[in-house]
Amino acid sequence: MLKVGLLGAGRIAGVHATAITAHPKSTLSAVSDFYPENAEKLAAQYGTVARTTDEIIADPAIDAVLIATSTDTHSDLMEAATRAGKAVLCEKPVDLSLERARACQNVVDTTGRPVMIGFNRRFDANFGALKSALDAGEIGKAELLSITSFDPAPPPVTYVKVSGGIFRDMMIHDFDMAHFIMGTAPVSISATASSIVDPEIGAAGDFDTAIVTLRYASGALAVIKNSRRAAYGYDQRVELLGSDGLLQAQNMLENTVVKSAAQGVTSAKPTYFFLERYMNAYKAEWAAFVTALETGGTMPRYLGRWGSGACHGRGSHKIRPDRSACRPR
Amino acid sequence: MLKVGLLGAGRIAGVHATAITAHPKSTLSAVSDFYPENAEKLAAQYGTVARTTDEIIADPAIDAVLIATSTDTHSDLMEAATRAGKAVLCEKPVDLSLERARACQNVVDTTGRPVMIGFNRRFDANFGALKSALDAGEIGKAELLSITSFDPAPPPVTYVKVSGGIFRDMMIHDFDMAHFIMGTAPVSISATASSIVDPEIGAAGDFDTAIVTLRYASGALAVIKNSRRAAYGYDQRVELLGSDGLLQAQNMLENTVVKSAAQGVTSAKPTYFFLERYMNAYKAEWAAFVTALETGGTMPRYLGRWGSGACHGRGSHKIRPDRSACRPR
Amino acid sequence: MLKVGLLGAGRIAGVHATAITAHPKSTLSAVSDFYPENAEKLAAQYGTVARTTDEIIADPAIDAVLIATSTDTHSDLMEAATRAGKAVLCEKPVDLSLERARACQNVVDTTGRPVMIGFNRRFDANFGALKSALDAGEIGKAELLSITSFDPAPPPVTYVKVSGGIFRDMMIHDFDMAHFIMGTAPVSISATASSIVDPEIGAAGDFDTAIVTLRYASGALAVIKNSRRAAYGYDQRVELLGSDGLLQAQNMLENTVVKSAAQGVTSAKPTYFFLERYMNAYKAEWAAFVTALETGGTMPRYLGRWGSGACHGRGSHKIRPDRSACRPR
Amino acid sequence: MLKVGLLGAGRIAGVHATAITAHPKSTLSAVSDFYPENAEKLAAQYGTVARTTDEIIADPAIDAVLIATSTDTHSDLMEAATRAGKAVLCEKPVDLSLERARACQNVVDTTGRPVMIGFNRRFDANFGALKSALDAGEIGKAELLSITSFDPAPPPVTYVKVSGGIFRDMMIHDFDMAHFIMGTAPVSISATASSIVDPEIGAAGDFDTAIVTLRYASGALAVIKNSRRAAYGYDQRVELLGSDGLLQAQNMLENTVVKSAAQGVTSAKPTYFFLERYMNAYKAEWAAFVTALETGGTMPRYLGRWGSGACHGRGSHKIRPDRSACRPR
Repeated sequence: MLKVGLLGAGRIAGVHATAITAHPKSTLSAVSDFYPENAEKLAAQYGTVARTTDEIIADPAIDAVLIATSTDTHSDLMEAATRAGKAVLCEKPVDLSLERARACQNVVDTTGRPVMIGFNRRFDANFGALKSALDAGEIGKAELLSITSFDPAPPPVTYVKVSGGIFRDMMIHDFDMAHFIMGTAPVSISATASSIVDPEIGAAGDFDTAIVTLRYASGALAVIKNSRRAAYGYDQRVELLGSDGLLQAQNMLENTVVKSAAQGVTSAKPTYFFLERYMNAYKAEWAAFVTALETGGTMPRYLGRWGSGACHGRGSHKIRPDRSACRPR
Repeated sequence: MLKVGLLGAGRIAGVHATAITAHPKSTLSAVSDFYPENAEKLAAQYGTVARTTDEIIADPAIDAVLIATSTDTHSDLMEAATRAGKAVLCEKPVDLSLERARACQNVVDTTGRPVMIGFNRRFDANFGALKSALDAGEIGKAELLSITSFDPAPPPVTYVKVSGGIFRDMMIHDFDMAHFIMGTAPVSISATASSIVDPEIGAAGDFDTAIVTLRYASGALAVIKNSRRAAYGYDQRVELLGSDGLLQAQNMLENTVVKSAAQGVTSAKPTYFFLERYMNAYKAEWAAFVTALETGGTMPRYLGRWGSGACHGRGSHKIRPDRSACRPR
Repeated sequence: MLKVGLLGAGRIAGVHATAITAHPKSTLSAVSDFYPENAEKLAAQYGTVARTTDEIIADPAIDAVLIATSTDTHSDLMEAATRAGKAVLCEKPVDLSLERARACQNVVDTTGRPVMIGFNRRFDANFGALKSALDAGEIGKAELLSITSFDPAPPPVTYVKVSGGIFRDMMIHDFDMAHFIMGTAPVSISATASSIVDPEIGAAGDFDTAIVTLRYASGALAVIKNSRRAAYGYDQRVELLGSDGLLQAQNMLENTVVKSAAQGVTSAKPTYFFLERYMNAYKAEWAAFVTALETGGTMPRYLGRWGSGACHGRGSHKIRPDRSACRPR
Repeated sequence: MLKVGLLGAGRIAGVHATAITAHPKSTLSAVSDFYPENAEKLAAQYGTVARTTDEIIADPAIDAVLIATSTDTHSDLMEAATRAGKAVLCEKPVDLSLERARACQNVVDTTGRPVMIGFNRRFDANFGALKSALDAGEIGKAELLSITSFDPAPPPVTYVKVSGGIFRDMMIHDFDMAHFIMGTAPVSISATASSIVDPEIGAAGDFDTAIVTLRYASGALAVIKNSRRAAYGYDQRVELLGSDGLLQAQNMLENTVVKSAAQGVTSAKPTYFFLERYMNAYKAEWAAFVTALETGGTMPRYLGRWGSGACHGRGSHKIRPDRSACRPR
């Protein structure tokens, strides 16, 4: 049974708490938060205890930590947790500063602890089915990828100012999705962006509408479209043209009811936002992390140095006592 | 070139006039109508002449007549036209009286002329594709057929009173569709019906909502659902469960535009009524009639004595001069 | 916190165990089964204890029992549990014998304990959305209901022989769905059925394909279609024509991926069988039961005497100590 | 009745011949072709005569010409026909040379004759419905346009070499569609392209896969995706995100049949290629041309100087005798 400390007690931490508790091979041992009363509340709901972050990291009985704190703490916590011998699942991103992220990577590498960055969308059943179909050769070779990713409504400008901007805060998921599907990094990239949804976003120096084109060494192309506002909800689609066909992962709808009336034929809207759309993906993400630890296998597939690269082809690590066998490159 | 006389100049006659004119192997030679001015108008539009029905039937230069007059004249006109040596395509039904229909059949049989009753839906591309997939064995053997057939709005009660009632006026098409798909007649039938759409229809002794269940010798079952009112338009669907799968012929929509907005996801309504939905079916029906005459083949498939039975496997009839080779059984 | 004893440790009991455990206001206190080792296994997985059924029913610390045993034990267990003061959620059906079911009802009535029969489909988000739209007047008054309910594959004949037959074993869900949607019982009913899927089912005196037509006092009609085999999976659809439009609850698909290739445009199949399709419905069913107990409200809506009728408009019952306030009529 | 001369007797000329003949206000007076026997054949089929191009242009009894010849003859024929007083509907493009196209424009301007360039997709019912919904304010202001336009299979390299390249030969339609929908020209544009479908296309100096991003003065963005190969057929979709919602014009399918079987749920492929997909658009295009001539209205909407600009707001021109009232700017 994997004993897990949850760092952070906000909304997404609640999602992870459910996944950790429901998984037959993991148990939620402790929760911490910047605001102790939040940790107390979450701990009570899930039948565990609230502790400080330092206590959790220092406790040798805790095998793994899930980092669901604010972005600016991710690097420090990953370093501290891996140095303390924990396996880590950390919410994206590593850091808004590429330099800091690389430094963190170096520290983590020296510890040899398994680390996975939580790109939840890779575990969505729809995108996963698309990727599997591609890998199975069902549409031949990949030629033209399109990712549509619209949020239901723009965030407050206060958030925008600390978010790192649309590309690092929002499109990061889509860059990762392109990596996930194409299986490689692009060789060139071009971007066009506007602030037309909310003028305050533009005034804050950010964009709310963007199109990015990627080119791969194979000649394959990709385009990512982002908007901070889709009046109909959370729009999360991926479409891939291959030499033998097209794969489309379409939106999930709130229900399957269709109403035909004098005004037209109406179906439900897409599931509202990331918690609804990706609830099952978060569970699958946790299950993949547990399985990788248990089997000593590769951290679930991530293109870069984080995660999947860690142990690939280099033996195995067991949760206990064999964790040190894993040496991230 | 098949020379055609069109009997009737109403709305459906206009559809047939287009089909006859556009077909490369037929030409519209004359039009008649109970109201001569209607015939004049239609003739002018299609570059032909208005004549009386008697003149058209008596003219040896006319090869075929298309009967698109009121139902009560069908039997008489079919008898007269076939006796005059014409090939006939007659709008359904033969007659509201089964006895009169059978008598007409006997007369037509003695003439040996090819006759087809116009069940347009058999020539709809969607139902045709369903039938073809069944015949190709794509879903194994037929087990449970469902036909949904709803009109957009109830007809005026004045029409209802002379229509023959919902089963002979409206469900006749669905009985024929069941025949077309199952390829055989049922062995038993049961019906349940109500007048809940328009109380005047009930007061006139008719129904506006009905469910009929059919049972076939193979044990296969079928259900037909009729309503005189679907607020969203003309609903024309067929669904067939077979031992290896399900086939569904869905509605055609006015266009392919989908709007996603705060209220939901909306697409276009079904194409409005039979003229819109079956426009291409009427053209295909005419083409099938011409082809059957030209090749001396079987009149396009109709289960009963009318039409397809006429020449099946018993030689051929050419438009001229060999028509007499066809002897309906 | 509602303390729950789970009677039965089979497949469906596992689903209920998850729902009971995950619900913040209920806890799984004990599990029993005819085969004690099954109870032990399930108890271990969910961190609870295995006991005998008699012990669970006799334990005053247990507030409610969920009966997930074989059908032939339902009536006896409901009587015993309510006599012991428990609230009860019992899997359908009450009993294959109508007489026994009525006798059970009478016993339960004398105890005044809240009882709900688990018709899981009422808690499916899709059927629920359809019902809500109807109740909100979105399609006017109900006129023609169609329920399509096909199993993926026929059960073994050994099961068929003890199942009570297709109408009591399978169509019972659809009769309940018709009740749920129409809000009233039909005034007449007619059935047509065949054994064409599996001749052994016919040899056992049962049917595998059936169409049932229902007629309501309002004149509204309904049709239920059942087949024991749909090669493409579990087909669970409801369609309702109203005076102002049509509502359709369509199948849920395994994922949203659509593949367009030379062979056609292909999407995923329906979610496979009742555990997959109704997993969330079982959770919602349990949540509704807990809420009804907690608020002292009506047992979630069931048309007949079972369940919703129990406390309707007659005050409230709290989980403790005020349960006796509920007096089923 | 508008008397029309058809220049060209190839495949697309046949489509136009049908439209001209079927329209109640136009008649096909003559056909010409580089190969006289092709003109003879087409003329026979449509009941008209074959003549030389010079004769048709010189004949004062002919009101309008439809130019459906090879691209390199368009400019010369437009100049000659307008100088001879004809109204002109010319297939796109005007010329592969922008300089030659502008010179042609200047000549046409001096004649004052109404000219329309045939961008057939503007008359597609689906794209038209999308445009109408946008113009009606149904999704607020346009923010992010996506055009997907894939051919079923790459053309032969011999064609590629004279085609002007993917941008002038294929994407020209999509540039026009972007113009049609956005109602204005972009202020900047960037392109990424590859040759990955057919290496011979790359060897010929052209591309077969391309993504182009457009930026409008309003800040709105657009992306056009082109591929010379879609294994599933002709993929023609437009999607527009607005401030209040999303509009999608989806593909038309060959029929509405859906098959559910063990392999999945399969529907028909998109209508195969431009003749099938845009057959009705060609008819609507012709009808719009006739209506504009008849009413003296603006040539159907085209953004640039060609077509709609011709008479906009500057009085009217009748087919006869008042055509000179139209003075293109």
